[in-house]
Amino acid sequence: MRYPNGQKYNKKTVKPKKKPADISLSAANRGMDLENDINESNAYYSEHDIALITKRPTPINIVKVDYSKGAKIVDAYFEKQSTTDYNGVYKGKYIDFEAKNTKNKTSFPLANITPHQIVHLKRVVQHGGIAFFIISFETLNEVYLLDSSFVVHFYEQGERKSIPYEVFQKEGILIKQGYNPRLHYIDAVKEKYFR
Amino acid sequence: MRYPNGQKYNKKTVKPKKKPADISLSAANRGMDLENDINESNAYYSEHDIALITKRPTPINIVKVDYSKGAKIVDAYFEKQSTTDYNGVYKGKYIDFEAKNTKNKTSFPLANITPHQIVHLKRVVQHGGIAFFIISFETLNEVYLLDSSFVVHFYEQGERKSIPYEVFQKEGILIKQGYNPRLHYIDAVKEKYFR
Repeated sequence: MRYPNGQKYNKKTVKPKKKPADISLSAANRGMDLENDINESNAYYSEHDIALITKRPTPINIVKVDYSKGAKIVDAYFEKQSTTDYNGVYKGKYIDFEAKNTKNKTSFPLANITPHQIVHLKRVVQHGGIAFFIISFETLNEVYLLDSSFVVHFYEQGERKSIPYEVFQKEGILIKQGYNPRLHYIDAVKEKYFR
Repeated sequence: MRYPNGQKYNKKTVKPKKKPADISLSAANRGMDLENDINESNAYYSEHDIALITKRPTPINIVKVDYSKGAKIVDAYFEKQSTTDYNGVYKGKYIDFEAKNTKNKTSFPLANITPHQIVHLKRVVQHGGIAFFIISFETLNEVYLLDSSFVVHFYEQGERKSIPYEVFQKEGILIKQGYNPRLHYIDAVKEKYFR
Protein backbone atom coordinates (compact mmCIF):
# COMPACT_ATOMS: atom_id res chain seq x y z
CA MET A 1 0.00 0.00 0.00
CA ARG A 2 2.86 2.34 0.64
CA TYR A 3 4.45 1.92 -2.76
CA PRO A 4 3.55 3.65 -6.00
CA ASN A 5 0.40 2.05 -7.27
CA GLY A 6 1.44 1.99 -10.89
CA GLN A 7 -1.58 4.08 -11.85
CA LYS A 8 -1.32 5.39 -15.40
CA TYR A 9 -0.32 8.96 -16.03
CA ASN A 10 -3.44 10.93 -16.79
CA LYS A 11 -2.76 13.79 -19.17
CA LYS A 12 -5.59 15.84 -17.75
CA THR A 13 -3.96 15.97 -14.35
CA VAL A 14 -1.28 18.43 -13.38
CA LYS A 15 2.07 17.77 -14.96
CA PRO A 16 4.28 16.01 -12.44
CA LYS A 17 7.76 17.41 -12.03
CA LYS A 18 9.13 13.91 -11.60
CA LYS A 19 9.27 11.78 -14.68
CA PRO A 20 7.48 8.41 -14.51
CA ALA A 21 10.87 6.72 -14.42
CA ASP A 22 11.49 8.27 -11.04
CA ILE A 23 8.99 6.03 -9.35
CA SER A 24 11.62 3.33 -9.43
CA LEU A 25 13.81 5.36 -7.08
CA SER A 26 14.35 3.84 -3.69
CA ALA A 27 11.75 4.55 -1.05
CA ALA A 28 14.26 6.46 1.04
CA ASN A 29 15.08 8.84 -1.79
CA ARG A 30 11.49 9.49 -2.63
CA GLY A 31 10.72 10.24 0.99
CA MET A 32 13.18 13.08 1.07
CA ASP A 33 11.09 15.42 -0.98
CA LEU A 34 8.13 15.79 1.34
CA GLU A 35 7.47 19.41 0.44
CA ASN A 36 7.43 18.66 -3.26
CA ASP A 37 5.18 15.65 -2.69
CA ILE A 38 2.68 17.75 -0.76
CA ASN A 39 2.75 20.55 -3.33
CA GLU A 40 2.06 18.08 -6.12
CA SER A 41 -0.68 16.41 -4.12
CA ASN A 42 -2.24 19.84 -3.55
CA ALA A 43 -2.13 20.54 -7.29
CA TYR A 44 -3.89 17.22 -7.87
CA TYR A 45 -6.53 17.94 -5.22
CA SER A 46 -7.14 21.42 -6.62
CA GLU A 47 -7.29 20.22 -10.23
CA HIS A 48 -9.77 17.48 -9.29
CA ASP A 49 -11.94 19.77 -7.14
CA ILE A 50 -11.27 17.72 -4.03
CA ALA A 51 -9.72 20.35 -1.77
CA LEU A 52 -7.99 23.71 -2.04
CA ILE A 53 -4.81 23.76 0.01
CA THR A 54 -1.92 26.13 -0.70
CA LYS A 55 1.57 26.58 0.62
CA ARG A 56 2.34 29.85 2.31
CA PRO A 57 5.38 31.42 0.68
CA THR A 58 8.47 31.57 2.88
CA PRO A 59 8.50 34.95 4.58
CA ILE A 60 11.49 37.03 3.58
CA ASN A 61 12.84 40.10 5.29
CA ILE A 62 13.79 42.49 2.51
CA VAL A 63 16.61 44.89 3.33
CA LYS A 64 17.39 46.44 -0.04
CA VAL A 65 15.75 46.58 -3.46
CA ASP A 66 17.50 47.93 -6.52
CA TYR A 67 14.85 49.73 -8.54
CA SER A 68 17.26 50.63 -11.30
CA LYS A 69 17.09 47.02 -12.41
CA GLY A 70 13.33 46.49 -12.28
CA ALA A 71 12.86 45.85 -8.55
CA LYS A 72 15.69 43.42 -8.05
CA ILE A 73 16.04 42.35 -4.43
CA VAL A 74 19.75 42.60 -3.59
CA ASP A 75 19.75 42.16 0.18
CA ALA A 76 17.26 39.99 2.04
CA TYR A 77 17.05 37.19 4.58
CA PHE A 78 14.81 34.20 5.17
CA GLU A 79 12.50 34.56 8.16
CA LYS A 80 11.08 31.78 10.30
CA GLN A 81 7.49 30.96 9.51
CA SER A 82 5.43 32.11 12.49
CA THR A 83 2.40 30.17 11.37
CA THR A 84 2.50 26.89 9.45
CA ASP A 85 3.40 25.98 5.90
CA TYR A 86 0.00 24.99 4.56
CA ASN A 87 -3.61 26.02 4.87
CA GLY A 88 -6.80 25.87 2.91
CA VAL A 89 -10.32 24.57 2.69
CA TYR A 90 -11.91 21.12 2.53
CA LYS A 91 -15.68 20.75 2.60
CA GLY A 92 -16.03 24.30 3.93
CA LYS A 93 -13.77 23.65 6.91
CA TYR A 94 -10.52 25.47 7.53
CA ILE A 95 -7.47 23.18 7.30
CA ASP A 96 -4.04 24.11 8.66
CA PHE A 97 -0.94 21.96 8.87
CA GLU A 98 2.79 21.79 9.10
CA ALA A 99 4.89 19.16 7.32
CA LYS A 100 8.18 17.83 8.64
CA ASN A 101 10.43 14.89 8.01
CA THR A 102 12.90 13.01 10.16
CA LYS A 103 15.56 10.39 9.61
CA ASN A 104 14.92 9.18 13.15
CA LYS A 105 13.23 5.80 13.46
CA THR A 106 12.02 5.86 17.05
CA SER A 107 10.70 9.36 17.59
CA PHE A 108 10.01 12.71 15.98
CA PRO A 109 12.11 15.50 17.55
CA LEU A 110 10.25 18.75 18.12
CA ALA A 111 13.35 20.93 17.90
CA ASN A 112 12.26 22.56 14.64
CA ILE A 113 8.81 23.54 15.86
CA THR A 114 8.67 27.15 17.06
CA PRO A 115 6.62 28.43 20.02
CA HIS A 116 4.78 30.70 17.54
CA GLN A 117 3.64 27.67 15.58
CA ILE A 118 2.29 26.01 18.72
CA VAL A 119 0.33 29.17 19.60
CA HIS A 120 -0.93 29.34 16.03
CA LEU A 121 -2.13 25.71 16.01
CA LYS A 122 -3.92 26.10 19.33
CA ARG A 123 -5.70 29.14 17.95
CA VAL A 124 -6.74 27.28 14.80
CA VAL A 125 -8.42 24.62 16.95
CA GLN A 126 -10.00 27.27 19.18
CA HIS A 127 -11.64 28.84 16.12
CA GLY A 128 -13.04 25.51 14.96
CA GLY A 129 -10.41 24.75 12.34
CA ILE A 130 -8.65 21.46 11.72
CA ALA A 131 -4.94 21.44 12.64
CA PHE A 132 -2.46 18.63 12.21
CA PHE A 133 1.06 17.65 11.28
CA ILE A 134 2.23 15.55 8.38
CA ILE A 135 5.33 13.75 9.58
CA SER A 136 7.49 11.68 7.28
CA PHE A 137 9.68 9.00 8.85
CA GLU A 138 12.05 8.89 5.91
CA THR A 139 14.01 5.83 6.91
CA LEU A 140 10.82 3.85 7.48
CA ASN A 141 9.12 5.29 4.39
CA GLU A 142 6.05 6.02 6.45
CA VAL A 143 4.13 9.29 6.45
CA TYR A 144 1.62 10.03 9.19
CA LEU A 145 -1.08 12.57 9.86
CA LEU A 146 -1.09 13.41 13.57
CA ASP A 147 -3.63 15.75 15.15
CA SER A 148 -2.05 18.94 16.50
CA SER A 149 -3.26 18.18 20.03
CA PHE A 150 -0.59 15.48 20.37
CA VAL A 151 2.14 17.80 19.13
CA VAL A 152 1.03 20.51 21.55
CA HIS A 153 0.92 17.95 24.38
CA PHE A 154 4.46 16.68 23.83
CA TYR A 155 5.75 20.17 23.11
CA GLU A 156 4.45 21.49 26.40
CA GLN A 157 5.71 18.55 28.44
CA GLY A 158 9.02 20.33 28.41
CA GLU A 159 11.28 17.42 29.24
CA ARG A 160 11.82 15.15 26.30
CA LYS A 161 10.84 17.30 23.36
CA SER A 162 10.01 14.54 20.93
CA ILE A 163 7.07 12.36 20.05
CA PRO A 164 7.68 8.59 20.28
CA TYR A 165 7.06 6.61 17.11
CA GLU A 166 4.48 4.51 18.96
CA VAL A 167 2.25 7.58 19.31
CA PHE A 168 2.11 7.86 15.51
CA GLN A 169 1.27 4.17 15.19
CA LYS A 170 -1.47 4.39 17.79
CA GLU A 171 -2.90 7.88 17.32
CA GLY A 172 -1.79 8.88 13.83
CA ILE A 173 -3.26 7.98 10.46
CA LEU A 174 -0.83 6.33 8.07
CA ILE A 175 -1.02 8.25 4.79
CA LYS A 176 -1.34 6.11 1.69
CA GLN A 177 1.39 6.81 -0.88
CA GLY A 178 0.82 6.56 -4.59
CA TYR A 179 1.79 8.08 -7.86
CA ASN A 180 -0.76 10.86 -8.24
CA PRO A 181 -1.46 12.20 -5.72
CA ARG A 182 1.83 11.16 -4.16
CA LEU A 183 0.33 11.48 -0.69
CA HIS A 184 -3.34 10.67 -0.26
CA TYR A 185 -3.45 12.86 2.80
CA ILE A 186 -7.00 14.12 2.24
CA ASP A 187 -8.14 10.51 2.70
CA ALA A 188 -6.47 10.64 6.12
CA VAL A 189 -8.19 13.96 6.87
CA LYS A 190 -11.52 12.40 5.93
CA GLU A 191 -10.87 9.39 8.14
CA LYS A 192 -9.78 11.46 11.12
CA TYR A 193 -12.13 14.45 11.01
CA PHE A 194 -15.10 13.69 8.76
CA ARG A 195 -16.59 10.47 10.04
CA MET B 1 -19.16 56.18 12.29
CA ARG B 2 -16.32 56.21 9.83
CA TYR B 3 -14.00 58.26 11.99
CA PRO B 4 -11.80 57.03 14.81
CA ASN B 5 -14.08 56.35 17.73
CA GLY B 6 -11.78 57.84 20.32
CA GLN B 7 -11.62 54.51 22.15
CA LYS B 8 -8.81 54.51 24.70
CA TYR B 9 -5.59 52.73 23.87
CA ASN B 10 -5.60 49.38 25.64
CA LYS B 11 -2.12 48.28 26.63
CA LYS B 12 -3.02 44.62 26.48
CA THR B 13 -3.79 44.76 22.79
CA VAL B 14 -1.20 44.51 20.08
CA LYS B 15 1.01 47.57 19.80
CA PRO B 16 -0.18 49.71 16.90
CA LYS B 17 2.52 50.90 14.54
CA LYS B 18 0.81 54.27 14.26
CA LYS B 19 1.11 56.56 17.23
CA PRO B 20 -2.19 57.79 18.70
CA ALA B 21 -1.39 61.25 17.34
CA ASP B 22 -1.76 59.84 13.84
CA ILE B 23 -5.49 59.49 14.19
CA SER B 24 -5.73 63.20 13.56
CA LEU B 25 -4.41 62.70 10.03
CA SER B 26 -6.84 63.41 7.27
CA ALA B 27 -9.17 60.64 6.30
CA ALA B 28 -7.59 60.42 2.87
CA ASN B 29 -4.15 59.82 4.30
CA ARG B 30 -5.29 57.16 6.70
CA GLY B 31 -7.09 55.35 3.92
CA MET B 32 -3.88 54.85 2.04
CA ASP B 33 -2.51 52.25 4.35
CA LEU B 34 -5.11 49.57 3.78
CA GLU B 35 -2.67 46.68 4.13
CA ASN B 36 -1.37 47.97 7.43
CA ASP B 37 -4.92 48.57 8.69
CA ILE B 38 -5.92 45.02 7.86
CA ASN B 39 -2.78 43.56 9.42
CA GLU B 40 -3.41 45.47 12.64
CA SER B 41 -7.06 44.49 12.63
CA ASN B 42 -5.99 40.86 12.21
CA ALA B 43 -3.62 41.17 15.17
CA TYR B 44 -6.51 42.57 17.22
CA TYR B 45 -8.86 39.78 16.15
CA SER B 46 -6.25 37.13 16.92
CA GLU B 47 -5.34 38.64 20.29
CA HIS B 48 -9.00 38.83 21.27
CA ASP B 49 -9.82 35.30 20.07
CA ILE B 50 -12.33 36.59 17.53
CA ALA B 51 -10.84 35.21 14.31
CA LEU B 52 -7.53 33.95 13.00
CA ILE B 53 -6.67 35.57 9.68
CA THR B 54 -3.12 35.89 8.37
CA LYS B 55 -1.47 37.56 5.44
CA ARG B 56 0.27 35.33 2.97
CA PRO B 57 3.84 36.50 2.53
CA THR B 58 4.64 37.99 -0.88
CA PRO B 59 6.02 35.18 -3.02
CA ILE B 60 9.59 35.83 -4.05
CA ASN B 61 11.54 34.12 -6.78
CA ILE B 62 15.01 33.58 -5.40
CA VAL B 63 17.80 33.51 -7.96
CA LYS B 64 20.91 33.58 -5.80
CA VAL B 65 21.75 33.10 -2.15
CA ASP B 66 25.14 33.91 -0.67
CA TYR B 67 25.78 31.26 1.96
CA SER B 68 29.13 32.76 2.93
CA LYS B 69 27.18 35.52 4.71
CA GLY B 70 24.64 33.38 6.54
CA ALA B 71 22.11 32.78 3.75
CA LYS B 72 21.90 36.31 2.43
CA ILE B 73 19.63 36.58 -0.59
CA VAL B 74 21.51 38.65 -3.18
CA ASP B 75 19.38 38.21 -6.29
CA ALA B 76 15.62 37.78 -6.20
CA TYR B 77 12.41 39.16 -7.66
CA PHE B 78 8.86 39.74 -6.47
CA GLU B 79 6.31 37.36 -7.93
CA LYS B 80 2.64 37.98 -8.50
CA GLN B 81 0.41 36.39 -5.88
CA SER B 82 -1.52 33.61 -7.63
CA THR B 83 -3.97 33.29 -4.78
CA THR B 84 -5.11 36.13 -2.53
CA ASP B 85 -3.41 38.11 0.20
CA TYR B 86 -5.36 36.89 3.23
CA ASN B 87 -6.92 33.72 4.53
CA GLY B 88 -7.85 32.12 7.79
CA VAL B 89 -10.65 30.83 9.98
CA TYR B 90 -13.72 32.35 11.60
CA LYS B 91 -16.16 30.13 13.48
CA GLY B 92 -14.69 27.05 11.82
CA LYS B 93 -15.29 28.38 8.32
CA TYR B 94 -12.56 29.07 5.81
CA ILE B 95 -12.19 32.77 4.97
CA ASP B 96 -10.27 34.07 1.94
CA PHE B 97 -10.00 37.60 0.67
CA GLU B 98 -8.09 40.13 -1.34
CA ALA B 99 -7.72 43.77 -0.35
CA LYS B 100 -7.34 46.64 -2.81
CA ASN B 101 -7.68 50.37 -2.78
CA THR B 102 -8.55 52.91 -5.41
CA LYS B 103 -8.48 56.69 -5.72
CA ASN B 104 -11.36 56.41 -8.16
CA LYS B 105 -14.72 57.69 -6.89
CA THR B 106 -17.13 56.14 -9.35
CA SER B 107 -15.86 52.60 -9.86
CA PHE B 108 -13.27 50.05 -8.84
CA PRO B 109 -11.04 49.08 -11.79
CA LEU B 110 -10.25 45.37 -12.01
CA ALA B 111 -6.94 45.84 -13.80
CA ASN B 112 -4.88 44.60 -10.85
CA ILE B 113 -6.83 41.39 -10.38
CA THR B 114 -5.16 38.42 -12.07
CA PRO B 115 -6.97 35.55 -13.81
CA HIS B 116 -5.31 33.21 -11.27
CA GLN B 117 -6.97 35.06 -8.44
CA ILE B 118 -10.37 34.74 -10.08
CA VAL B 119 -9.87 30.99 -10.50
CA HIS B 120 -8.73 30.76 -6.89
CA LEU B 121 -11.76 32.63 -5.54
CA LYS B 122 -14.18 30.50 -7.54
CA ARG B 123 -12.54 27.40 -6.11
CA VAL B 124 -12.80 28.71 -2.57
CA VAL B 125 -16.55 29.12 -3.00
CA GLN B 126 -16.83 25.72 -4.66
CA HIS B 127 -15.24 24.12 -1.58
CA GLY B 128 -17.65 25.85 0.77
CA GLY B 129 -15.34 28.67 1.84
CA ILE B 130 -16.17 32.34 2.18
CA ALA B 131 -14.51 34.58 -0.41
CA PHE B 132 -14.71 38.34 -0.71
CA PHE B 133 -12.86 41.56 -1.47
CA ILE B 134 -12.14 44.45 0.83
CA ILE B 135 -12.11 47.54 -1.34
CA SER B 136 -11.10 50.94 -0.05
CA PHE B 137 -12.37 54.00 -1.90
CA GLU B 138 -9.63 56.25 -0.56
CA THR B 139 -11.00 59.55 -1.75
CA LEU B 140 -14.39 58.78 -0.24
CA ASN B 141 -12.90 57.25 2.91
CA GLU B 142 -15.20 54.27 2.53
CA VAL B 143 -14.17 50.63 2.79
CA TYR B 144 -16.48 47.91 1.58
CA LEU B 145 -16.71 44.15 1.82
CA LEU B 146 -17.99 42.77 -1.48
CA ASP B 147 -18.71 39.07 -2.03
CA SER B 148 -16.38 37.51 -4.61
CA SER B 149 -19.31 36.54 -6.84
CA PHE B 150 -19.72 40.20 -7.89
CA VAL B 151 -16.03 40.54 -8.66
CA VAL B 152 -16.09 37.35 -10.71
CA HIS B 153 -19.22 38.58 -12.52
CA PHE B 154 -17.74 41.94 -13.55
CA TYR B 155 -14.36 40.38 -14.30
CA GLU B 156 -15.88 37.90 -16.71
CA GLN B 157 -18.08 40.43 -18.44
CA GLY B 158 -15.01 41.32 -20.44
CA GLU B 159 -16.02 44.76 -21.65
CA ARG B 160 -15.76 47.33 -18.94
CA LYS B 161 -13.44 45.73 -16.41
CA SER B 162 -14.52 47.69 -13.39
CA ILE B 163 -17.22 47.55 -10.76
CA PRO B 164 -19.44 50.63 -10.49
CA TYR B 165 -19.51 52.33 -7.09
CA GLU B 166 -23.28 51.78 -6.94
CA VAL B 167 -22.70 48.02 -6.77
CA PHE B 168 -20.75 48.52 -3.55
CA GLN B 169 -23.47 50.72 -2.11
CA LYS B 170 -26.18 48.24 -3.00
CA GLU B 171 -24.49 44.86 -2.60
CA GLY B 172 -21.48 45.53 -0.40
CA ILE B 173 -21.25 45.94 3.33
CA LEU B 174 -19.76 49.24 4.50
CA ILE B 175 -16.98 48.38 6.98
CA LYS B 176 -17.05 50.39 10.19
CA GLN B 177 -13.75 52.17 10.86
CA GLY B 178 -12.39 52.78 14.32
CA TYR B 179 -9.21 52.95 16.27
CA ASN B 180 -8.69 49.34 17.28
CA PRO B 181 -9.45 47.39 15.24
CA ARG B 182 -9.03 49.97 12.49
CA LEU B 183 -11.39 48.04 10.25
CA HIS B 184 -14.25 46.13 11.88
CA TYR B 185 -14.39 43.83 8.90
CA ILE B 186 -15.33 40.72 10.86
CA ASP B 187 -18.58 42.51 11.79
CA ALA B 188 -19.21 42.81 8.06
CA VAL B 189 -18.40 39.10 7.58
CA LYS B 190 -20.87 38.26 10.33
CA GLU B 191 -23.56 40.44 8.77
CA LYS B 192 -23.05 39.02 5.29
CA TYR B 193 -22.39 35.32 5.93
CA PHE B 194 -23.49 34.41 9.45
CA ARG B 195 -27.09 35.53 9.77
